Amino acid sequence: MKSVNQNGEINNDFMNKLVAFITETTYEQLPQQLVDLSKKAIIDTIGVSLAGWHEPAVESVKNIYHHQAGVSSLWGEAHLLDAERAALINGTASHVLDYDDASPGVIIHPSAPILAAITPLAEQLNSSGQVVITAYAIGTEVMVRVGQVMGIKHYNAGWHATSTLGAVGAAAACAYLQRLNTEQCTNAISIAASMAGGLQKNFGSMTKPLHVGLAAAGGIQAVQLAEQGFTGNSQIFDSRGFFLAFSGLDEDATQSVKESIAFGSPYDLLTGLSVKKFPCCFGTHRFIQGALLLKEEHQLHIDMIDEIVLRAQPRSLLPLVHSRPVTGLQGKFSAEYTVLAALIDGHVRLSSFEDAQVQRADIQNRLPQVHVFKIDETEEDKRLNRRLPIEIQIKTKDGQVYEKAVLHAPGSIETPLSEQEHREKWVICVSHYMQVETSVIESVANELYDNGLQMDKYTCFGEWLKEIQKQLNIYQSKQTV
Amino acid sequence: MKSVNQNGEINNDFMNKLVAFITETTYEQLPQQLVDLSKKAIIDTIGVSLAGWHEPAVESVKNIYHHQAGVSSLWGEAHLLDAERAALINGTASHVLDYDDASPGVIIHPSAPILAAITPLAEQLNSSGQVVITAYAIGTEVMVRVGQVMGIKHYNAGWHATSTLGAVGAAAACAYLQRLNTEQCTNAISIAASMAGGLQKNFGSMTKPLHVGLAAAGGIQAVQLAEQGFTGNSQIFDSRGFFLAFSGLDEDATQSVKESIAFGSPYDLLTGLSVKKFPCCFGTHRFIQGALLLKEEHQLHIDMIDEIVLRAQPRSLLPLVHSRPVTGLQGKFSAEYTVLAALIDGHVRLSSFEDAQVQRADIQNRLPQVHVFKIDETEEDKRLNRRLPIEIQIKTKDGQVYEKAVLHAPGSIETPLSEQEHREKWVICVSHYMQVETSVIESVANELYDNGLQMDKYTCFGEWLKEIQKQLNIYQSKQTV
Repeated sequence: MKSVNQNGEINNDFMNKLVAFITETTYEQLPQQLVDLSKKAIIDTIGVSLAGWHEPAVESVKNIYHHQAGVSSLWGEAHLLDAERAALINGTASHVLDYDDASPGVIIHPSAPILAAITPLAEQLNSSGQVVITAYAIGTEVMVRVGQVMGIKHYNAGWHATSTLGAVGAAAACAYLQRLNTEQCTNAISIAASMAGGLQKNFGSMTKPLHVGLAAAGGIQAVQLAEQGFTGNSQIFDSRGFFLAFSGLDEDATQSVKESIAFGSPYDLLTGLSVKKFPCCFGTHRFIQGALLLKEEHQLHIDMIDEIVLRAQPRSLLPLVHSRPVTGLQGKFSAEYTVLAALIDGHVRLSSFEDAQVQRADIQNRLPQVHVFKIDETEEDKRLNRRLPIEIQIKTKDGQVYEKAVLHAPGSIETPLSEQEHREKWVICVSHYMQVETSVIESVANELYDNGLQMDKYTCFGEWLKEIQKQLNIYQSKQTV
Repeated sequence: MKSVNQNGEINNDFMNKLVAFITETTYEQLPQQLVDLSKKAIIDTIGVSLAGWHEPAVESVKNIYHHQAGVSSLWGEAHLLDAERAALINGTASHVLDYDDASPGVIIHPSAPILAAITPLAEQLNSSGQVVITAYAIGTEVMVRVGQVMGIKHYNAGWHATSTLGAVGAAAACAYLQRLNTEQCTNAISIAASMAGGLQKNFGSMTKPLHVGLAAAGGIQAVQLAEQGFTGNSQIFDSRGFFLAFSGLDEDATQSVKESIAFGSPYDLLTGLSVKKFPCCFGTHRFIQGALLLKEEHQLHIDMIDEIVLRAQPRSLLPLVHSRPVTGLQGKFSAEYTVLAALIDGHVRLSSFEDAQVQRADIQNRLPQVHVFKIDETEEDKRLNRRLPIEIQIKTKDGQVYEKAVLHAPGSIETPLSEQEHREKWVICVSHYMQVETSVIESVANELYDNGLQMDKYTCFGEWLKEIQKQLNIYQSKQTV
């Protein structure tokens, strides 16, 4: 979207484009496909947050603020806090299992920081479901496009892009919710730019999910300040500003990309959102999928298997650093473990990443049977940044060799989760949160899911959040009685 | 301070040194000179914060949280908030006039973010004056030393070092206050590293002072999380961590500096703290001083003066960008205005930077009489990064020429403020805060100053803060009656 000034000239300044996108976008303009995708992404984000609710990282953040009060829901309990603190806690929960969706193009998890910022403020403002969906579409789009200006340089400099871009995207989403005018919007974005932070070096610690909460809370704070008349520098995206600090790229290196960016035309989510099917590193997903397919097609039992060979291009193997995992967290970054779990259990679920599951003798004894190799890329593959399929080869004790190649991860935009898979993920997340079997909670969870799909009909989005807590509390009381 | 491990080997790892400095430093170890300097710096920081209390930036932040409650004092009013929010507001006030002290070596304002983080937590923990002074010494030292690892590269990348380093220093100070153990301390510093942010591009907007509040609040939050068992990466200062993100310098480029750093041996404050005498850009201070000296020595009246010539080396003139200022804020960055104000008024005070003062015909008509020139530096001056004196030359209408050269700014470590000047600054700040003439509030302000000098005797530091509000409230009630 290019804004046109009063003289009819196209205004191509990056900040002006960004702010015009916030102030001029309406729900009615959103493509239906984007609305549908957004609703599912919102449900998915709250689902994975519920699943992560009892993790120690979330408990710690809650403990600091538990004595306070406010008007904004925590997604996982019937306690209200002020908007910033609710965002901090919900945001931490949303990313604590690393089970939330991703936009691999700019290496971010878009939904988590944006939704964590939106819902507390939406409750404060009694925003409708349609307003929330629009804010979500705006926030995620801003996050991705600002990231595109810096490209891989941002990530290479050691920043956690979900957090840095999340603060700016969260401010954009909240500025829309708060109906800030152009000047206030500009200030909100500039203020949020000064709140952005979060280092990759903290990956593997509790601070990684905290980044998401900090970004979300910062976005709300920036908007609340801007609404009070607080000022930032409208030229924050120009020379010696945000882009230099976060990527080393100054005006000359970013100008042409900035000019080329058109917010919402089309929305990046429509071409780039991946929803995780399995609660572990995306790098394992294609291997798991291949293993599950081979197991089903050939009725494989683990005792029939002699050797497993996995192949992928180098960049796909980079995050898979644990070939001999002994904890659940390590298992999430292990091709060997996740493939064995798929073949033994027939599924890879949240429970697969309990320490005891990884430590099973069945698993540990068989880890040496799995061999991982790099696929050689041609010069052209490298030049075109081509994605090559992963390969899985299973050799049985009776000399059979079964093979499968998988190009797209399940949940990627090319092979998205089916409606049924999506719903199942929600039910599993809710049951994990309630600490009961899925069969026990299925009907309540399904009803909440159905209501979630109707979120665009809610005149007050917060009602759905409160309904989740209410229904699950009713269920829990019944069990206790 | 190098920590020695159980095998008697010197442990030179930067994080270990830093954390050992936090956990092992005691009040008794602090040089008396540092204690005296710290007490004055603490009084000065609270003074300039009171002077800035009614600024719109501070009002905006207060408005967002005014309905909340807590146990920590706002420096400028008898309302208590939770520690983080008190830090945010006090921190914003401390830097809003740019009147707070500076450590020019790493281009930071050390006292503001550190003290803003300390006092709210100290009140929550009922810390003594000696504990507060120790925390202050630790926090400012950590801030400077972490900054030294990156040198000018950090500032050149567009970061506001007061804010980025402030978050880490604030966490160090609060970790000491909270008596965190080694593991918790390490986590607190790593968490704070992920909270660091703040862009120079926002200089000139309200977001600049907000940075200080954000850094202070982040430091408290990091420590409260670490105390709950929250984790960060202990290797945050190693390869691809904090230093890469904030300066582009990775392990190979920082290792030798990291190894050379000895925290507290000696304390940087003892060799580098500058306390501002005038409430404007440090770059104007030597010109103002020269003008005041010439005026006094030669009984100069402005009507006697025909022309004023100012000379300084190029880097000293860089921030003085307003040769024809029309607002108070512009006046702070104007050599022309500040010198004329000194010659006309005989002083340069907070009131000198009200818009009306800058807009006086007396001033505006004479701005063209002031000429500013660069001093040519020799190659050796440049190579040795020499500081050259500024020169001021006043030509009178009767043909006299008076000259003065000033090498050190008043308030610098070479020519520190006298006890009397320090006290006068406090009284002026308090009177500005109370919006009365200094003569009216002098005795109350002096008593509070005297008590401040005794802060090391307070078993509960917060009592002094509450006393300030109490005394000033009593005074105010008397006036109202």
